[in-house]
Amino acid sequence: MIGCIGDEQRLAEVPLGALAGVESVIPVLRPYTLASREGHHPVDTTTVTLGTASGARPCVVGGAGIAVIAGPCSVESAEMLTTTARAVRAAGARALRGGAFKPRTSPYAFQGLGDAALEMLAAARAETGLPVVTEVMDPRQVESVAGVADCLQIGARSMQNFPLLAEVGGTRVPVLLKRGLSATVHELLMAAEYVLARGNGRVILCERGIRTFETATRNTLDVAAIPVLKSETHLPVIVDPSHAGGAANLVAPLARAAIAAGADGLIIEVHPSPATARSDGEQTLDFPQFGALMQGLAPVAAAVGRGVNGHGDQPRLRLTTAAPSRNSARRQRR
Amino acid sequence: MIGCIGDEQRLAEVPLGALAGVESVIPVLRPYTLASREGHHPVDTTTVTLGTASGARPCVVGGAGIAVIAGPCSVESAEMLTTTARAVRAAGARALRGGAFKPRTSPYAFQGLGDAALEMLAAARAETGLPVVTEVMDPRQVESVAGVADCLQIGARSMQNFPLLAEVGGTRVPVLLKRGLSATVHELLMAAEYVLARGNGRVILCERGIRTFETATRNTLDVAAIPVLKSETHLPVIVDPSHAGGAANLVAPLARAAIAAGADGLIIEVHPSPATARSDGEQTLDFPQFGALMQGLAPVAAAVGRGVNGHGDQPRLRLTTAAPSRNSARRQRR
Amino acid sequence: MIGCIGDEQRLAEVPLGALAGVESVIPVLRPYTLASREGHHPVDTTTVTLGTASGARPCVVGGAGIAVIAGPCSVESAEMLTTTARAVRAAGARALRGGAFKPRTSPYAFQGLGDAALEMLAAARAETGLPVVTEVMDPRQVESVAGVADCLQIGARSMQNFPLLAEVGGTRVPVLLKRGLSATVHELLMAAEYVLARGNGRVILCERGIRTFETATRNTLDVAAIPVLKSETHLPVIVDPSHAGGAANLVAPLARAAIAAGADGLIIEVHPSPATARSDGEQTLDFPQFGALMQGLAPVAAAVGRGVNGHGDQPRLRLTTAAPSRNSARRQRR
Amino acid sequence: MIGCIGDEQRLAEVPLGALAGVESVIPVLRPYTLASREGHHPVDTTTVTLGTASGARPCVVGGAGIAVIAGPCSVESAEMLTTTARAVRAAGARALRGGAFKPRTSPYAFQGLGDAALEMLAAARAETGLPVVTEVMDPRQVESVAGVADCLQIGARSMQNFPLLAEVGGTRVPVLLKRGLSATVHELLMAAEYVLARGNGRVILCERGIRTFETATRNTLDVAAIPVLKSETHLPVIVDPSHAGGAANLVAPLARAAIAAGADGLIIEVHPSPATARSDGEQTLDFPQFGALMQGLAPVAAAVGRGVNGHGDQPRLRLTTAAPSRNSARRQRR
Repeated sequence: MIGCIGDEQRLAEVPLGALAGVESVIPVLRPYTLASREGHHPVDTTTVTLGTASGARPCVVGGAGIAVIAGPCSVESAEMLTTTARAVRAAGARALRGGAFKPRTSPYAFQGLGDAALEMLAAARAETGLPVVTEVMDPRQVESVAGVADCLQIGARSMQNFPLLAEVGGTRVPVLLKRGLSATVHELLMAAEYVLARGNGRVILCERGIRTFETATRNTLDVAAIPVLKSETHLPVIVDPSHAGGAANLVAPLARAAIAAGADGLIIEVHPSPATARSDGEQTLDFPQFGALMQGLAPVAAAVGRGVNGHGDQPRLRLTTAAPSRNSARRQRR
Repeated sequence: MIGCIGDEQRLAEVPLGALAGVESVIPVLRPYTLASREGHHPVDTTTVTLGTASGARPCVVGGAGIAVIAGPCSVESAEMLTTTARAVRAAGARALRGGAFKPRTSPYAFQGLGDAALEMLAAARAETGLPVVTEVMDPRQVESVAGVADCLQIGARSMQNFPLLAEVGGTRVPVLLKRGLSATVHELLMAAEYVLARGNGRVILCERGIRTFETATRNTLDVAAIPVLKSETHLPVIVDPSHAGGAANLVAPLARAAIAAGADGLIIEVHPSPATARSDGEQTLDFPQFGALMQGLAPVAAAVGRGVNGHGDQPRLRLTTAAPSRNSARRQRR
Repeated sequence: MIGCIGDEQRLAEVPLGALAGVESVIPVLRPYTLASREGHHPVDTTTVTLGTASGARPCVVGGAGIAVIAGPCSVESAEMLTTTARAVRAAGARALRGGAFKPRTSPYAFQGLGDAALEMLAAARAETGLPVVTEVMDPRQVESVAGVADCLQIGARSMQNFPLLAEVGGTRVPVLLKRGLSATVHELLMAAEYVLARGNGRVILCERGIRTFETATRNTLDVAAIPVLKSETHLPVIVDPSHAGGAANLVAPLARAAIAAGADGLIIEVHPSPATARSDGEQTLDFPQFGALMQGLAPVAAAVGRGVNGHGDQPRLRLTTAAPSRNSARRQRR
Repeated sequence: MIGCIGDEQRLAEVPLGALAGVESVIPVLRPYTLASREGHHPVDTTTVTLGTASGARPCVVGGAGIAVIAGPCSVESAEMLTTTARAVRAAGARALRGGAFKPRTSPYAFQGLGDAALEMLAAARAETGLPVVTEVMDPRQVESVAGVADCLQIGARSMQNFPLLAEVGGTRVPVLLKRGLSATVHELLMAAEYVLARGNGRVILCERGIRTFETATRNTLDVAAIPVLKSETHLPVIVDPSHAGGAANLVAPLARAAIAAGADGLIIEVHPSPATARSDGEQTLDFPQFGALMQGLAPVAAAVGRGVNGHGDQPRLRLTTAAPSRNSARRQRR
């Protein structure tokens, strides 16, 4: 019995079925060979660590503790970013999110501060020790974003942007892969497989709500996708309760539900003043709301036998802004 | 400022706008006047108690404790029912579910044992003290089912069966109203309003998954509907993780997620031998699985400041089969 | 090779597999044995004729011609109904629709004129010769509605109201079965099977749009369901472009699309003054709009090798109001 | 009254509301300013002509005639492509489709022949005079694909790939923009706006089915989107019945429905031997099937007052392979 991965075209050219000793050639049921749990120990979860290359305080996703990533939808200024980074760290978050390049439905909407935002993220990391997670939308920007980010976020609209998946697969930077609005769990795993097949095994899956007929919420959080994914794949699974519900008052209950269902972490939108945020304000928490969420999360995590990463402990050090170049080490393509 | 309920036709005939002192006539934004939380204290939940008329041990839904209703999809025999009732009570369930009349997609599938099953439910109640919950599909059967059941279940396919809603609204028996497969939260509340408008205020809402494009699960549990409903209505909200996920291994994580998100209870399918169940076997728990689920539920309930109803305590008494007739008191229509 | 229909429970009790000469017992892939095209000639469509018992001018659905059913959403008065009936007949419609009992999402919305509306429908039929189609929602009303109607409409929300399906299956009155909002084509056929299994073979299927994420239209017309149904079943298939699109300006293009895709007929909402209609005004055509639609339909029907039933021809006679009682003949249950 | 387009950020910095003579600043309801029909004559459709730069026989989309684009899902060899091009031209197609770069759910599936396929497309155009339509997925490939293609197809998965939209917006090559699997009509128009806002007004919209709960078809053709789009935008609208239905026997009825509903054209998968096609075989027509479809289309087009482009007429000339370089003229970015 032999499993093969790779381009099926080549396989089609080889008369495997005609070889002596071959009874039949069977396409595997789970075409996501690398993402599949098969071959892994049933309870294994691959851990993905953010911050190893940048000297940030490492944030482990997929381990015993729940990893919370928090920060603004988009980076609006250095000051608001650092203020937010300090606040979320104090509340227990262990990584910082912030959009530099924003996918927006309208060409006339705010598209993010771009490269300037990347510098602000690096500065906030240096200040707080939090690894940074930021989205990349364009394969041409993967190299520059990967030069700063501790984790490359692939947004829901990019889940099947195959050239982009191939490009982030060519780095060794962790990838946070969000489920597409109408993607099945199977398609999410196939998208992860694109990254894995290029040699980058540091993939975190993220359920962020799917599009359904229901209009009371922005999307419908598919909470069952968490245990389904956990049984199908060894990759860690986190949840974005901010985009799923689309409303600040839903973030905490959805976050608790996600942890209770087995999620390995959360990514949450936090802003000093959600009412004035340039994007996603209605679903963004302010600092007291985020603090309350973190307080409420700990007992739920404990109820399922887990802790919340670093909740209550202190950052070990301050970093300087000048991070060493990490590109040469990172971009080892096959 | 005056709120009016009732047939809008009559209102159309009254020239309210022309009366002195009337500035404008405004249709209310939430047409579910009776179900709406408006006018209720923000944290109020109406409690609905099962078992008050039958002499069963009362099961409170919507109080401080989580209420768990469990039992087989359909009643298959007196023996299996009583065996299951004893097992689920021992594990902490406080009401017994069991279908007498089953809605089935195919006219050739098992449709339930009918009246015989109602007798078996009464006997199991007498034996265990558990109030019984069973589905009614036909307005002509409401009277006879209400003569036995402690709670009338309206199935997902009947959520907008308006003659049926009116009929159960005419009883004073608690109603467990399941969300339709493609019903919005708003439509669920309007369906509840049909029951409430007939004078029966004992309505429990039940999220049981909606139909989406995803095929990895039978339905998609809309876990966000729980906090949305809790903010919109004072009625208690429970969840059916069995139908939502459609697979036994998903029941426990979905049950935990539901409680973490604020649900007041659960309704779960349990059978002595799921592999031989006449319906829904693949999503049904056996006794050890149900016991494990209940064990895991208690800490999650505690994490959100609640207990699990009667978990660990003992039934107070054994009842005899001969329950007093309750019809005369119950069927007080307006 | 033997096909069996009926309660699978009985089959389970018969050891068919153990009989001599039986190799295996195989559940058929298409459980809608009676609705299935298998066994019918590939191009066969069962024709269902409306009006045979009432003395109305017969309207054939499923024959060479396209059958158009038109009229108001709900019967509002005798005068508006007759006016509408005359207008739609003049434009080429061959049956009259009109709701007497209306399923409404809100208990406070107009629910229809009930029995009075049935009398108005009979009078309009007597005046114009058009067979009447009207909805029945409650199994207790099937007998009285069947005493007047030439066709019993089962609304989308009732598609899986199994007691109701059984009840109309017990009559010999044609049934117009609308697809549920979230019903698959397979489930629609299973619902038809409920009626057929009771002995009433006069079933017309109706695609009326399904519920999706798209909000630009009320529902999403699943135009592909027409050829899928035509290949699966011998029953005639019509389309309701009024409910599918939910907007008057979409009715004509959707009607043309339906005919081009192979539909056997249409059911369309028409009102003398849509702006003042008591329900569905925004999707209702006025007389000139309906006339224009019918003009535009004829060449599309011709393009797919069909005509429009009776378009341009004259009604053969006027009927008196006093129709003979038809109940005794009709209600021959098995 | 002044309409403004562009980055809303700048607008926010200008105190327009404070200027003399300004009563209020109102965000327009339709944020797709350039795609919107507002300002255009109600019956206007912008025509987009394929083939003007390459010397191919021009194919007009959005004019009086229906434009049919046909060809294989993916280019598999020069011979099969030219054979197919000749066959579809003979049957009345006026442009050739063929994938060089294929988006595939699995990283192990056939991804297209790439640049070699572009050369085969140019050769087939030279041989038959048919303009070529091919997909571009990667912003880095826009320049090279635009150097060959007469029309750049943006696939459903790329509809909200904003860097890609910006890049094709920077060319002057016609763009065929497919609706995303779960994109609303509004989002499709906003995606078109990205291209238009960069200065490329040659956008053709394509409805190709949306993702719903129904599994009898690959997607659900949203035929109502055609008249909705035609009333919202001046851009031409075509339909892809091959991907919508996902089955060869559904292509012809869906094509007829699309034309009857007002579509300006069709894009259809045709292959010499669908059973051996490397992708999408089950939904691909062979030559006789495509010929029959075209025969059946003409009367439907006539029924809605249109013809089928060039149906029955002859190509005017043969082209040589050596097309002049068109890049310099095309890539005029703003």
